[in-house]
Amino acid sequence: MTTDPRNHEAESGYFSEDDSAEVVIARIASDSDPRLREIMDSAIRHLHAFVKEVEPTQEEWGKAITFLTETGQICNDWRQEYILLSDILGVSMLVDAINNRKPSGATETTVLGPFHVADAPRYESGANICLDGKGEPLVVTGRVTDTQGQPIAGAMLDVWQANEDGFYDVQQKGVQPEMNLRGIFTTDADGRYWFKSVRPKYYPIPDDGPVGKLLGQMGRHPYRPAHIHFIVGAAGFEPITTHIFTPDCPYLHSDAVFGVKQDLIADFHAVDDPARASELGFSNPFQAVTCDFVLVTPQQKLEG
Amino acid sequence: MTTDPRNHEAESGYFSEDDSAEVVIARIASDSDPRLREIMDSAIRHLHAFVKEVEPTQEEWGKAITFLTETGQICNDWRQEYILLSDILGVSMLVDAINNRKPSGATETTVLGPFHVADAPRYESGANICLDGKGEPLVVTGRVTDTQGQPIAGAMLDVWQANEDGFYDVQQKGVQPEMNLRGIFTTDADGRYWFKSVRPKYYPIPDDGPVGKLLGQMGRHPYRPAHIHFIVGAAGFEPITTHIFTPDCPYLHSDAVFGVKQDLIADFHAVDDPARASELGFSNPFQAVTCDFVLVTPQQKLEG
Repeated sequence: MTTDPRNHEAESGYFSEDDSAEVVIARIASDSDPRLREIMDSAIRHLHAFVKEVEPTQEEWGKAITFLTETGQICNDWRQEYILLSDILGVSMLVDAINNRKPSGATETTVLGPFHVADAPRYESGANICLDGKGEPLVVTGRVTDTQGQPIAGAMLDVWQANEDGFYDVQQKGVQPEMNLRGIFTTDADGRYWFKSVRPKYYPIPDDGPVGKLLGQMGRHPYRPAHIHFIVGAAGFEPITTHIFTPDCPYLHSDAVFGVKQDLIADFHAVDDPARASELGFSNPFQAVTCDFVLVTPQQKLEG
Repeated sequence: MTTDPRNHEAESGYFSEDDSAEVVIARIASDSDPRLREIMDSAIRHLHAFVKEVEPTQEEWGKAITFLTETGQICNDWRQEYILLSDILGVSMLVDAINNRKPSGATETTVLGPFHVADAPRYESGANICLDGKGEPLVVTGRVTDTQGQPIAGAMLDVWQANEDGFYDVQQKGVQPEMNLRGIFTTDADGRYWFKSVRPKYYPIPDDGPVGKLLGQMGRHPYRPAHIHFIVGAAGFEPITTHIFTPDCPYLHSDAVFGVKQDLIADFHAVDDPARASELGFSNPFQAVTCDFVLVTPQQKLEG
């Protein structure tokens, strides 16, 4: 303790450029929530270090205030621009990675995205989720197993994707059939599932707002490579949120939201088999992909 | 260069937890604006370092998204919650400090705050800016000089403060007289100015929004210590934005926005002088304060 508080900014509570973060952190009450203190301590230190590194002009500070304000103001019931900002800065993927460290062999996770809906229709195996008749017919087959390769019967696969025009049904209410390209499937006794759909196409994230403008200023395109979303869950296992990607998409190495992982690139391929096509009700040739999912138990996840 | 891009996440463009910031930064086009690149590079590095330090759960990430969204959505023509957030985290003061490094002897600056208006009335010396008749009468006197102590004639002082109830006129349209406690004064040939007002009182920043809630969670109060705002400018000198504070305010060491600097605490004091009180039209005793302002030239500021 010094006797003259004026010699010690942090003690006086007065601001100083040198001790700026420490002065602010010192104000957090010692009896406030420990987790909040931990988060705010780190946030304040990094925020001040960032400002000291870039030394913004008052005008640049004003632009940042405007950007943050507009990013909040464009949000509504069906648009979440702050999630989009988190996505394009790689923060959503980082939070996903931190929360899904798993033993080797388990299926990798990736971002949920903003287009999942909770009440997709439940279908029998083999149903076609494509209700608008657009796109290249695709058959998706695979198994859900544990890390020992044992089948998981009764696992649920919640599946959704954008249509041939690059939009999810919820983005085009009244244009696409409701629940187009969504469905929930269940594995059989051997852990197998299958359904019909269409080969996914790449599409841009909404880029007419502040986040799209920032992407443009960074010289980045707004496209996500073609993918199908899955949430796969089963009793006694940790659910996983993931995608599978087509292997030849031009945006595979530059996903606007950094969602691609090598292990999630699947073997989408053309099949020339008139008999099988006829069986499926497809014209020949058609597209097919097989993707297996490996789930872990909560205990395995903890150890992962 | 490696031959297999899968061995090198930053090259493949794929996300990895370890290289997360590098992968995102590598996407910024080399021909984008160099200042934007500098800012985004630093922002992304600090944002990822923060997330890695605190390891947020998906639920905590969701709470952060909601906080940022609501902070934007509460903003309107007369309320700027993101400036308030910048203020309570000490960022506004830090940006002010970075942009106002000055030679020793010059008057210190502090935050502008959200309540300045551009078109305050111009008054002759001695005018009373208090139009609602509330509060303890105060006479403010002083000089504006250069760093050599030479008077600056014709300097303009733009003055504003909250009223006895702790509100600025713009916060209480229809309640307070328009332009209550605002005015622009000009120094005489000897650099002197003076005006009448009331002794300022402490007041809370708007604390009914997301920022007020965060303050509360950190165990911090929303009060700003009693102060009068000044913008002082003169031809050939750098304008300064500053406050003067009363010396005995209970919130002097815990300003919610970190605006206090030792040199800005002024000698507000009671005067017991019936003749002078009568001259001023005040009852006796009354309050007085003297505050001198020292301006620097643009050249001095550059060297500061």
